[in-house]
Amino acid sequence: MSVKNLLEGKRGIIFGALNEHSIAWKVAEQAHAQGARFTLTNAPIAMRMGELQNLADFCKSEVIPADATSVEDLENLIAKSMEILGGKIDFVLHSIGMSPNVRKGKSYDDLNYDWFQKTMDVSAVSLHKLLQVAKKMDAINEWGSVVALTYIAAQRVFPDYSDMADAKSLLESITRSFGYHYGVEKKVRINTISQSPTPTTAGSGVSGFNAFISYAEDMSPLGNASALDCANYCITMFSDLTKYVTMQNLFHDGGFSNTGVSRKVMDRFM
Amino acid sequence: MSVKNLLEGKRGIIFGALNEHSIAWKVAEQAHAQGARFTLTNAPIAMRMGELQNLADFCKSEVIPADATSVEDLENLIAKSMEILGGKIDFVLHSIGMSPNVRKGKSYDDLNYDWFQKTMDVSAVSLHKLLQVAKKMDAINEWGSVVALTYIAAQRVFPDYSDMADAKSLLESITRSFGYHYGVEKKVRINTISQSPTPTTAGSGVSGFNAFISYAEDMSPLGNASALDCANYCITMFSDLTKYVTMQNLFHDGGFSNTGVSRKVMDRFM
Amino acid sequence: MSVKNLLEGKRGIIFGALNEHSIAWKVAEQAHAQGARFTLTNAPIAMRMGELQNLADFCKSEVIPADATSVEDLENLIAKSMEILGGKIDFVLHSIGMSPNVRKGKSYDDLNYDWFQKTMDVSAVSLHKLLQVAKKMDAINEWGSVVALTYIAAQRVFPDYSDMADAKSLLESITRSFGYHYGVEKKVRINTISQSPTPTTAGSGVSGFNAFISYAEDMSPLGNASALDCANYCITMFSDLTKYVTMQNLFHDGGFSNTGVSRKVMDRFM
Amino acid sequence: MSVKNLLEGKRGIIFGALNEHSIAWKVAEQAHAQGARFTLTNAPIAMRMGELQNLADFCKSEVIPADATSVEDLENLIAKSMEILGGKIDFVLHSIGMSPNVRKGKSYDDLNYDWFQKTMDVSAVSLHKLLQVAKKMDAINEWGSVVALTYIAAQRVFPDYSDMADAKSLLESITRSFGYHYGVEKKVRINTISQSPTPTTAGSGVSGFNAFISYAEDMSPLGNASALDCANYCITMFSDLTKYVTMQNLFHDGGFSNTGVSRKVMDRFM
Repeated sequence: MSVKNLLEGKRGIIFGALNEHSIAWKVAEQAHAQGARFTLTNAPIAMRMGELQNLADFCKSEVIPADATSVEDLENLIAKSMEILGGKIDFVLHSIGMSPNVRKGKSYDDLNYDWFQKTMDVSAVSLHKLLQVAKKMDAINEWGSVVALTYIAAQRVFPDYSDMADAKSLLESITRSFGYHYGVEKKVRINTISQSPTPTTAGSGVSGFNAFISYAEDMSPLGNASALDCANYCITMFSDLTKYVTMQNLFHDGGFSNTGVSRKVMDRFM
Repeated sequence: MSVKNLLEGKRGIIFGALNEHSIAWKVAEQAHAQGARFTLTNAPIAMRMGELQNLADFCKSEVIPADATSVEDLENLIAKSMEILGGKIDFVLHSIGMSPNVRKGKSYDDLNYDWFQKTMDVSAVSLHKLLQVAKKMDAINEWGSVVALTYIAAQRVFPDYSDMADAKSLLESITRSFGYHYGVEKKVRINTISQSPTPTTAGSGVSGFNAFISYAEDMSPLGNASALDCANYCITMFSDLTKYVTMQNLFHDGGFSNTGVSRKVMDRFM
Repeated sequence: MSVKNLLEGKRGIIFGALNEHSIAWKVAEQAHAQGARFTLTNAPIAMRMGELQNLADFCKSEVIPADATSVEDLENLIAKSMEILGGKIDFVLHSIGMSPNVRKGKSYDDLNYDWFQKTMDVSAVSLHKLLQVAKKMDAINEWGSVVALTYIAAQRVFPDYSDMADAKSLLESITRSFGYHYGVEKKVRINTISQSPTPTTAGSGVSGFNAFISYAEDMSPLGNASALDCANYCITMFSDLTKYVTMQNLFHDGGFSNTGVSRKVMDRFM
Repeated sequence: MSVKNLLEGKRGIIFGALNEHSIAWKVAEQAHAQGARFTLTNAPIAMRMGELQNLADFCKSEVIPADATSVEDLENLIAKSMEILGGKIDFVLHSIGMSPNVRKGKSYDDLNYDWFQKTMDVSAVSLHKLLQVAKKMDAINEWGSVVALTYIAAQRVFPDYSDMADAKSLLESITRSFGYHYGVEKKVRINTISQSPTPTTAGSGVSGFNAFISYAEDMSPLGNASALDCANYCITMFSDLTKYVTMQNLFHDGGFSNTGVSRKVMDRFM
């Protein structure tokens, strides 16, 4: 298969590419390969650490810094994106998550509540702000598709994921709630993709992450999904082939979510 | 049946009784009837509007005002409760929810983000604070039971429920996450009860509420559950008969949650 | 707590007590302790292996053999039960499950389809037959409560559980479907309880069961729930305190179902 | 977008095309347009009523009659398909469902149990047989994709759907269970797509179907998904862009599944 035009003529905004390990980075590469044009954005501070301009050059894309918790920055991002791309937006990738509590090693029963609020604002409320701004600006075309990346900790407890689990639950709720309103009024669809644990820069901040990757690998009938495979899945969700999928949380995890236990995991208990 | 001692010897804290329509009010009456002793608490401002002292007199209980978003108030509440009741706590009812956006008629695609944060703080983060304070104070006995009231809007969209849906999703996530940690370390269990729409003072703030009550009544095979029935269900969850139920969201809704459509609702489409 | 009358005046039928390890056996003991009167039933062949008469003597109950896949036997069972107990039935426990494929070691990708059908008939369709017969005979009182025991393999794969997983999914679907119809017409409620793996005679037929018990124990924040605790939970579901709970699958599993991974399980991967 | 090669080089088997209204018919057309080659199959009796040969001519495909409940027929189908297509299979569509109880107007509390078994065999066990035969013949390539069509009645009650709801629950359980085993051993993935009610010949057998279509249309933020849109979604699931999605039930329903109530439905209660 060498499909080349699945997103031909589509315009997008991609949040969260930090470096080549990022899922968002792979999404940009694949969207570019499929004929899409898009802008890239990240927090000003993340961009100083990252290599986003290289990606932009490769994808013939422009970088627009934006703090995703700032309504003003989002307004600017969307306005400039429409100007650069020459029209309304067809797809958006939200790949943003950060917990100061996790970073600083606060356990879930000893949270700093200012940091908790920061976790929610960056990782979940940012999606609402993005959608609210876009809807007020009428910036997304009919049948446009917004995808936010999430994790199964929104449904089940993974102790070290801490308050990021709560943020992902909130993110998925916002996806459903806004998906209803935006769907009814403008036929815009909004979904989350719940991805296998992925060795990105963000993921690796969680303690014991390598052991956890092994656990998920052993538990998943197909093994863990890679960042590239996740990007491919995002492409299908941005395409016109999935127009009636909305308000869903879609597991892209090699079957982890519906596996109670695998033989490989049971072997450790025999 | 006239059971009298299901909670004999148990000590509790009940949040959220405002007046005789409140579910928390009914829980207090039923917990009293089952032999429990407990303190009652509410926000100072809510208490001025309410008749909580009457309930306290009836239940031989004391009222301790507390802003559930204040760690300091929660520490005081728990310390005083243990002092008054003469020991650690066995059960807690969290029945707290409030959205300034709903109250002031802001639609979900036009949220005020300061108010959104207030909705989260009051309706969801308050549960985390309560649990974190209780755990740090080692204030809950083994097999103690915490119940928070929630609504199915955490799973599916009810347009007028607005950002309260997001708050309830967050509340249920906190229930799971803290339920893991408190369970492993202290065998405390934490669950939510997802109740039918109930004509309380809080519920009636949502627009079109009466029509919505009718819809839920027609959709539920057993009809809507009353506040009293909900209180009875809470009693079972506080009792020793449900010791291994934890981290669950329990629907108490006459079957609404698993009904795709009822014949009564379909009649309106024939 | 020494509650004595939670089921006072109630009449029931209890399926599936084989010996003192059976959950149904514990349910019978606890229902008796709470003032209920009931009949006991099991398949004629199971009774020859079991000690059901001892339990019946202890509970002042009568034993009525019935093949739960036989409509005729179920009609006889219900008619005799109403006659013996002096009125309509208030509660039923369905604790029946058997897979010839599992017993004879057929793997899930090499099923014998006659046995598969037998698994469905015994473990799932028997519930439908019981309910259909009861409804036609108008044998259950308003607010009567039917509980069937199930396992989380209905939601997630546990490889050795084989076609019993499919049977439990079917059982839970029947619970929802019949719960709707029986609820609307007669206010009878029907639920499943999804219990921790339990070292009963039935459970121990599954290969590697001891290792699996250890896994579930390590994964569950409160540890595995015992048969006695499960019986206590059943009692609450039979009582009038849970009248508006219907069509639900209720996890009684120490938190297993909502735990993605526990620290104890992760330790095996470190 | 005019993608032309999403399934280039892939070989498939498509069950259940009856006439141009069938979802399977649309899947065949779209798979053909995307470069796939496949065989078409249906029950001998259904083929006499249908126009399957016209579709086969259009798609340069061959028709192989098979009773999907017959292991022998399935063996023949798969062997011939591999012979005709020149290699192992990459994708399969299972679009088979039939309930004699529904057809003959038996209500859910008055089922004929022989017919119930027939419903299960045709609508659910046929998927297991297909997979078991394929796995024994090693007939599906690595990363091959099997999709079965289902309906949300597997999760929630729609009264007129009767025992088809139980069949769909069983179908989804088989999908998970076999998805585990086939995934671990051969990296074959298996999913269900839960489609909006669709005015096909099969769907129209359910009583009150037109009113029900209206209800679902009013409840779904994007409206009901068409057969063509469903076919497009199936194409993505057969493609290499969704390689790590397995054991999932995927709602393709315009948001119906996560909508508690829509404003349009509420209007009927105001």
